[in-house]
Amino acid sequence: MSKKAGPQSTASSNPTATSACPALELSESDLTDFAMGAAFLGAGGGGDPYIGQLMAKNAIREFGHPMIIDAESLPDDATVVMVGMLGAPTVLTEKAAAGPDIDLAIQRMSERLGRPVDVLMPIEIGGVNSTIPIVASARSGLPLLNADGMGRAFPEIQMLVMNFEGLSATPFVIVDEHLNSVIVDTSTAPDAEAFVRTIAVHMGLSCMVTGYPMTGADAKRATVWNTLTVALDIGRAIVRGRRTGDPVGELIRALCATDIYGYAREIFDGKLIDLQRDTATGFSVGQARFEGLSDPERHLLVKFQNEYLIALEGDTLKAVVPDLIAIVDRETAEPIPVEALRYGQRVKILAVAAPKIITTPQALASVSPRCFGLDVDYQPIRSLAGDAS
Amino acid sequence: MSKKAGPQSTASSNPTATSACPALELSESDLTDFAMGAAFLGAGGGGDPYIGQLMAKNAIREFGHPMIIDAESLPDDATVVMVGMLGAPTVLTEKAAAGPDIDLAIQRMSERLGRPVDVLMPIEIGGVNSTIPIVASARSGLPLLNADGMGRAFPEIQMLVMNFEGLSATPFVIVDEHLNSVIVDTSTAPDAEAFVRTIAVHMGLSCMVTGYPMTGADAKRATVWNTLTVALDIGRAIVRGRRTGDPVGELIRALCATDIYGYAREIFDGKLIDLQRDTATGFSVGQARFEGLSDPERHLLVKFQNEYLIALEGDTLKAVVPDLIAIVDRETAEPIPVEALRYGQRVKILAVAAPKIITTPQALASVSPRCFGLDVDYQPIRSLAGDAS
Repeated sequence: MSKKAGPQSTASSNPTATSACPALELSESDLTDFAMGAAFLGAGGGGDPYIGQLMAKNAIREFGHPMIIDAESLPDDATVVMVGMLGAPTVLTEKAAAGPDIDLAIQRMSERLGRPVDVLMPIEIGGVNSTIPIVASARSGLPLLNADGMGRAFPEIQMLVMNFEGLSATPFVIVDEHLNSVIVDTSTAPDAEAFVRTIAVHMGLSCMVTGYPMTGADAKRATVWNTLTVALDIGRAIVRGRRTGDPVGELIRALCATDIYGYAREIFDGKLIDLQRDTATGFSVGQARFEGLSDPERHLLVKFQNEYLIALEGDTLKAVVPDLIAIVDRETAEPIPVEALRYGQRVKILAVAAPKIITTPQALASVSPRCFGLDVDYQPIRSLAGDAS
Repeated sequence: MSKKAGPQSTASSNPTATSACPALELSESDLTDFAMGAAFLGAGGGGDPYIGQLMAKNAIREFGHPMIIDAESLPDDATVVMVGMLGAPTVLTEKAAAGPDIDLAIQRMSERLGRPVDVLMPIEIGGVNSTIPIVASARSGLPLLNADGMGRAFPEIQMLVMNFEGLSATPFVIVDEHLNSVIVDTSTAPDAEAFVRTIAVHMGLSCMVTGYPMTGADAKRATVWNTLTVALDIGRAIVRGRRTGDPVGELIRALCATDIYGYAREIFDGKLIDLQRDTATGFSVGQARFEGLSDPERHLLVKFQNEYLIALEGDTLKAVVPDLIAIVDRETAEPIPVEALRYGQRVKILAVAAPKIITTPQALASVSPRCFGLDVDYQPIRSLAGDAS
């Protein structure tokens, strides 16, 4: 497909959908690997990937495969909208979403914009929010952009790359399972977050959302590219490693080989000995403590707000947001999201370098450790590892 | 103007606005009387009429007089939208609204509907919500319907006549003083109320709203007609009574002469000896106790939720919602809204028969005493007075 696009249709037939070449096709077994890889990149957030892949498989069986397109084939004047679920992952996994709520979230956005939505995009590459857009794309017939708004998962609306790049979060649409819908327009993304969180709590913390409407040109500039492909590659690496006996090693090598992340390492090998978790604020907030398997005197504390935010060994910082902290089963490398943490789990804890676009000064204004109430500055895992090794 | 209307324009120029004959003109002194009459019909709710009339006078000086049209001259295919403020009256009076928020509430509704709004209508005939539509009409140039959605004031969205008549409360638009806007779509009016109340609390309990979009034909069927005229007549009656020395008597006679109410009486003459008031739930909720002036052994208890809901003398029901209970200064007949109640005030308490359209079985499903958590059935003031006299 030509990179230079003709004028977009304002009718319901969509030239982007019919003329673009698919960048990625996901078979049923791919979806299992993809969901596992996305769960890893979710850094603890985004909910249960098993639920997510079931939803995607069901949607594909009913509506056919979604067309996934690369950012470089996106027409500059396309209308791109991010789509996802919003709420506490612990609730999301209890209420598997249906579909009409996703359709309505797209419809309301289109009505509000006064033009059709051309292309969908995941809000984040993490857990359920990587597979919900596949459901949305399969149901609507709209192509899905091989990119996302975070290059990981974050808990709040102002933490998307589009915000760091000056794009508006609103209009932002929220739909609940009863098909009640709310459209929010605010002048700032933190205001949007405050409204949307209030409404999401009222909706019972499980809702479908669309937001950050943007042009194709803006979507090329202000997203993390190719993260759907990376999620699939990571999932496949884990599966490959299970066959060769070193899933965590394969996973780390796959991450190091990506352009987006380029660096990953194991920071702890231990078992979960203490867990505190609360969802009263509309997030899964708490902390988990791990004891070293080879040395029970060593302890690692991991704090989370939907996602894992910081890893501390005593007073020593081991990894901190926006770098990705992921917890995986030490034998299978199965990613363990926050809501699946259980006492006694034997795990490896990995840190992955954040995509560069979320470590710029304007990004750190929204996603530095202090934005999460942590009293430290961001220190990249590369430098922390260099200090510690 | 012919009652049979031509097709409505979908452009910005509005045939209703330019061809209808004004039904009512409000001079500056009229506005003072009108606001006082509306404060009485607000039955304790709707906020300080002094603030409301100041806002209306300022808007008329800047933008000119609004065109007020009668329901019978309304084209059947006009798009009619109700406009007002929502929040706790105690907060409303502290934050006098500006204007751009009202404009935006109308604009967002028009965008959501995909067509221009032709005619505005007050949500309720009470306090600030009788004068905000005058501001909205003056600013926008849209005609204002001489009718309202309650024939009094009520605290909740599902308590409008339009709801009893099967019309949808949504889309419902809420705008705050910072011009953040939210559009709610729900399948039921109580759901809309729950969402809007949650959002209004988040907005600090002072917001401009538009809602209940309907056709002119529906507006004719599902509103209380001529209440702007009645508010002016009542205000004038009070002023006339002050000159002749019997303002409460003049007021009661004026109410008895209306088609809409047709019956009013004094139910207590006393002074306020105890007051409890709380706004934590997003409403002004509480109760006031009065001692008889001529007989200190007699006590009347009045409970309220934004509006006065029930008057009890010991175990004897004296008046109850949806009939109007109003408290006025015993010398001047100045209406006293809930937030102006003060210890020691000498007052007369009046009960007024509710408009018939809000005492039908389908209306009582939403506005009976039990809808306000009161453990009594509705008993019309006429029958209560008959029993008691």
